[in-house]
Amino acid sequence: MPGVGPRSAERIALWMVQARHDQPEQIAQNISATRRQVRPCNLCGFFATEALCEICRDETRARDLLCVVEQPTDILPLEKTSAFRGRYHALGGRISPLDHIAPEDLRIRELLQRVEAEQLSEIIFALAADVEGEATTNYLVDLLKAKPLKLTRIARGLPAGGGLESADELTLYQALTGRTQL
Amino acid sequence: MPGVGPRSAERIALWMVQARHDQPEQIAQNISATRRQVRPCNLCGFFATEALCEICRDETRARDLLCVVEQPTDILPLEKTSAFRGRYHALGGRISPLDHIAPEDLRIRELLQRVEAEQLSEIIFALAADVEGEATTNYLVDLLKAKPLKLTRIARGLPAGGGLESADELTLYQALTGRTQL
Repeated sequence: MPGVGPRSAERIALWMVQARHDQPEQIAQNISATRRQVRPCNLCGFFATEALCEICRDETRARDLLCVVEQPTDILPLEKTSAFRGRYHALGGRISPLDHIAPEDLRIRELLQRVEAEQLSEIIFALAADVEGEATTNYLVDLLKAKPLKLTRIARGLPAGGGLESADELTLYQALTGRTQL
Repeated sequence: MPGVGPRSAERIALWMVQARHDQPEQIAQNISATRRQVRPCNLCGFFATEALCEICRDETRARDLLCVVEQPTDILPLEKTSAFRGRYHALGGRISPLDHIAPEDLRIRELLQRVEAEQLSEIIFALAADVEGEATTNYLVDLLKAKPLKLTRIARGLPAGGGLESADELTLYQALTGRTQL
């Protein structure tokens, strides 16, 4: 398991063998139940226990806003901000020729189907601010630029709490060129 | 000296005493010469050897763009990006009641004088993305908002090379709300 080294593993193993209550058995059952029940949402790819995830089933969320992310796990930090009330689409990765990940390996066809089927007004690209995230965003923008849609990208710039001295050159460059009117 | 611990200090001290060439003496002379020659620029507060610094004397730089920073040292990383071709104004700090730094302790009067004297079209606030940097920016915007000037701030958002999983909540919030059209 991630984060469990040899010493922790030994402690857990001994606890499992020596426990007088049925907690280890309960954990085992929960693990298999979770494995059985949690599957990717048919629409967005997020974690779901039914055909659609909780976010896609939520009728109160804006139906015309779509946020494209790389991994379903990227949805969790975005949800924590409470800044976005639309729905998501997880690609399942990003285009990366070095890792043999081509556009066909991502859920791009599903994204295009959603664009056709749903009345979207804006797609927000929330991919990583690195070369591959950028390349994937550009690829998708090229595919979608002919559609009557607003295409936006989350801002690049100084992270919260950061001073100028701790920012790297590229971040400062993007912060300067992407400056906002006050 | 910063970055010189007891062990390094001892090594340097022994080298100074035992050196057969006059390098230590040269270093001493250079230190006093630098201390004597380098002073704050009369206009922007950056390091200068004359009344005005190299940036303020540079005739090729845009005269209508002013970038406000906290410390003169913040000018160095901004210059490295080559993204800004205007001039600077270092405040000498930021408003911080806890550290007993009030607006009067900063070079704000000098900034207002420059706004009156120079034909500026835009002031870019490049202060730290934390509470005190934000408060100082807001204070200055309040002072300047009546002037016929464009007031901008460097972008907040995802730093270059960063994924969503490594960004904190506030950074992601600012990246989402400050999203840019593609």
